[in-house]
Amino acid sequence: MTLEKIFEQIVAKRSFLCVGLDTDINKMPAVLNDKEDSVFEFNKAIVDATAAYTIAYKPNLAFYECMGIKGLQSLGKTVRYIRDNYPDIFLIADAKRGDIGNTSKMYARAFFEEHPFDAVTVAPYMGSDSVTPFLSYSGKFVILLALTSNPGANDFQMCKNEDGVHLYEKVLKESVQWGDEKKIMYVVGATRAEMLTSVRNIVPNHFLLVPGVGAQGGSLSEVAKYGMNKKCGLIVNASRSILYADSSENFANAAAEEAKKMQLEMEALLIEHRIVK
Amino acid sequence: MTLEKIFEQIVAKRSFLCVGLDTDINKMPAVLNDKEDSVFEFNKAIVDATAAYTIAYKPNLAFYECMGIKGLQSLGKTVRYIRDNYPDIFLIADAKRGDIGNTSKMYARAFFEEHPFDAVTVAPYMGSDSVTPFLSYSGKFVILLALTSNPGANDFQMCKNEDGVHLYEKVLKESVQWGDEKKIMYVVGATRAEMLTSVRNIVPNHFLLVPGVGAQGGSLSEVAKYGMNKKCGLIVNASRSILYADSSENFANAAAEEAKKMQLEMEALLIEHRIVK
Repeated sequence: MTLEKIFEQIVAKRSFLCVGLDTDINKMPAVLNDKEDSVFEFNKAIVDATAAYTIAYKPNLAFYECMGIKGLQSLGKTVRYIRDNYPDIFLIADAKRGDIGNTSKMYARAFFEEHPFDAVTVAPYMGSDSVTPFLSYSGKFVILLALTSNPGANDFQMCKNEDGVHLYEKVLKESVQWGDEKKIMYVVGATRAEMLTSVRNIVPNHFLLVPGVGAQGGSLSEVAKYGMNKKCGLIVNASRSILYADSSENFANAAAEEAKKMQLEMEALLIEHRIVK
Repeated sequence: MTLEKIFEQIVAKRSFLCVGLDTDINKMPAVLNDKEDSVFEFNKAIVDATAAYTIAYKPNLAFYECMGIKGLQSLGKTVRYIRDNYPDIFLIADAKRGDIGNTSKMYARAFFEEHPFDAVTVAPYMGSDSVTPFLSYSGKFVILLALTSNPGANDFQMCKNEDGVHLYEKVLKESVQWGDEKKIMYVVGATRAEMLTSVRNIVPNHFLLVPGVGAQGGSLSEVAKYGMNKKCGLIVNASRSILYADSSENFANAAAEEAKKMQLEMEALLIEHRIVK
């Protein structure tokens, strides 16, 4: 997947929405209970209902790993289904991986060879050699954690170093030397939209994956105000607000409604910022 | 698993060795090629040959995930085999996970409920709420990354904040408020043994998981000099130097020899520090 293709999708769908597939078997509609692979059936229904409004899907690995082999089979089927049926969709493994070089190389193989993901989220704590093995794949992206949407982001990411630079800014400044916007994107939480100004000072052209709109309380218009660049530069994720919009057999329609609502908000912002007419 | 049981193992086996099961199908002896599950057969042979010298095993998740479902089945069989046949062994999932609270909760479920691991390695970048879900399990440990053994550790972990405190020290200082030595251990790389003095100033009683001895070049006696406390307080990992000591059909004997060599070095250090007689 190239940046150009992602931008084409944004323009065509008038949307920069990513749907997070944090599929929780305990929150799924009862109507799926008797299916052999209810997790896959749920994901398939959500994807089919929302793909018109969505440029990316982001399965959250934890939700599949906690179900053991069966969960990982559901994940594999989901990823393959999206790849085969919606080849233009940007496919993100939300996995927060990162380890010493020889190990990160194996994780890269897992997500980019064993699975057909276009991108994987990576934690920066272990530094350059924990990230670079993911960068050697052409047409694949690392989405590096910079400033996350959770309360714990204050514990370390917001710490200032001797030069008054926050750790998340240091992560941005260092990592732009490892790969440019064709290889790296960043996670920046919507719950800290005002920080997007300092992020954009360091990485004006990189795409940002923005979680925290919806269930976590971030504002879409604030995110666009501080974070949008002339190629949009934003992929905004929503998970729970779309997946569990309705717990009846009408769940897929309700998810589509919710995704469409976000797409319309995004369309207005794209027009306002003169990215589409 | 309790700290007392880990210490009992150290005294009984006169060892603080952990064998890292970074099982790479491309490095395994050809004699296993025709086995149906050669990864499991390799692990089983290594475990049976080294268990007398070892207090812990640490499968590295990346090496299994990169082989897809088949790799994860081999991992499951390996973990179950160790748990059933060597119930006193400390079982570590080297997974470097960590995400927002509701997601870390799912990872905790994966490692502590779906698998019978005693501990999981966790990356601290996302702060307290990314770690605390792992701490709610009785008899289970988080092993938090503090100072890792790779070159990239210099990029962020060694950065000093406004008060002259390194990031890895800040991680130690904050996280001791989330859980004590009965719940948390730390990763501190052997390649930076001299830093163990500052680590021990902050966490005198916590166990440290120390990678980097062997293939990465760290020194065991330096680690003991700066890091050992009166309950040993060290679990030193070796992976490649033991697993791939020999590529012939004699691989398991060679691994046992290598593990025994390390155990004897460790025994001398335990005697020197008056932990065993």
